[in-house]
Amino acid sequence: MTNKGLLVILSGPSGAGKGTVIQSLLAQSKTIRLSVSATTRSPRPGETDGKEYYFISREKFSRMEQGGRMLESAEYCGNRYGTPAAPIEEWNSQGLDALLEIEVQGGALVKAKRPDSVGIFVLPPSLEILEQRLRNRGTEPDETVRKRLQAAKREIREAGNYDYVVVNDQVERAAGEICQIIRSEKLRTSRNKQLIERVLNK
Amino acid sequence: MTNKGLLVILSGPSGAGKGTVIQSLLAQSKTIRLSVSATTRSPRPGETDGKEYYFISREKFSRMEQGGRMLESAEYCGNRYGTPAAPIEEWNSQGLDALLEIEVQGGALVKAKRPDSVGIFVLPPSLEILEQRLRNRGTEPDETVRKRLQAAKREIREAGNYDYVVVNDQVERAAGEICQIIRSEKLRTSRNKQLIERVLNK
Repeated sequence: MTNKGLLVILSGPSGAGKGTVIQSLLAQSKTIRLSVSATTRSPRPGETDGKEYYFISREKFSRMEQGGRMLESAEYCGNRYGTPAAPIEEWNSQGLDALLEIEVQGGALVKAKRPDSVGIFVLPPSLEILEQRLRNRGTEPDETVRKRLQAAKREIREAGNYDYVVVNDQVERAAGEICQIIRSEKLRTSRNKQLIERVLNK
Repeated sequence: MTNKGLLVILSGPSGAGKGTVIQSLLAQSKTIRLSVSATTRSPRPGETDGKEYYFISREKFSRMEQGGRMLESAEYCGNRYGTPAAPIEEWNSQGLDALLEIEVQGGALVKAKRPDSVGIFVLPPSLEILEQRLRNRGTEPDETVRKRLQAAKREIREAGNYDYVVVNDQVERAAGEICQIIRSEKLRTSRNKQLIERVLNK
């Protein structure tokens, strides 16, 4: 089995519970590292550089982008956001798996640049339950919930572009399925050409 | 997750230990059924119809083949051998996984006819260990061992046509990896289009 780590792209609509699944995943697996995005926006109170984001200047962002050191990037509300390639490459070469939580447009950009990555889409059990979850947060007016639900539908229609789907009806089970996908993907023939050669030459 | 069973194609050179891996697999999993080939050769003493093979007439074999009821077929030493499609389809529709142990040419024919099948190639840890295993059987003259080793090399070069490779250095681990592959494959987006539609419509 290959001892190179994987790049795992994790997407899913707001309310699908990606955050709690990721917490469970990091607790279950010793080989998974969570990718941290870079942004040009200023840190909010309580945010730490390298934890929520790498907070970098617009100049540095542009330099990294032009040097091919961003796996993807996007502009949002006048600020730039991107995925630094270096930590992912380093983890992968050490046999560690990089987990990238990202929305579907960004996920498509990363998949195009790294076809060897594994795309996993986290689904809610149903739109009804998704709506409940969004309402239970209790902080959003009806209009916002309605808009989020529409956005969720649009995102779920992109699930077909991912390699795997995992239904988050139970957090630990969903996280366990993702661990299983990662282990199984490492047995793919396409990742083990060298292993086959090694067997033939020993 | 889809509740349709999978068709799993298992190949590997003589001496890779497919037989013991399959025994361990059947003991570990409740959902796997082993496909039984049909042949026109006569049963040997101790062989039972439906266990080692389905022993059928040449006429019946031809009728099944012409009716598209064989997934693949081959001629060997004047006898015909083939994989009946019906049991596999029935198991799959019941949510049971069909395991087909087959050599690489037959495996390629099945994969072409059923692109949704999952090909797994069982590798020995090394050619050296394969040779030891072949010699330890103790029943074969040197010349036969040499020929088998050459045949094994040719087969291993076909491993690249399979979806996954599993190294049989430890039987239970190898069988466990195959179980993992089966569970993970059921999470593939391509097998869960209906699930995605269901989530969108509930």
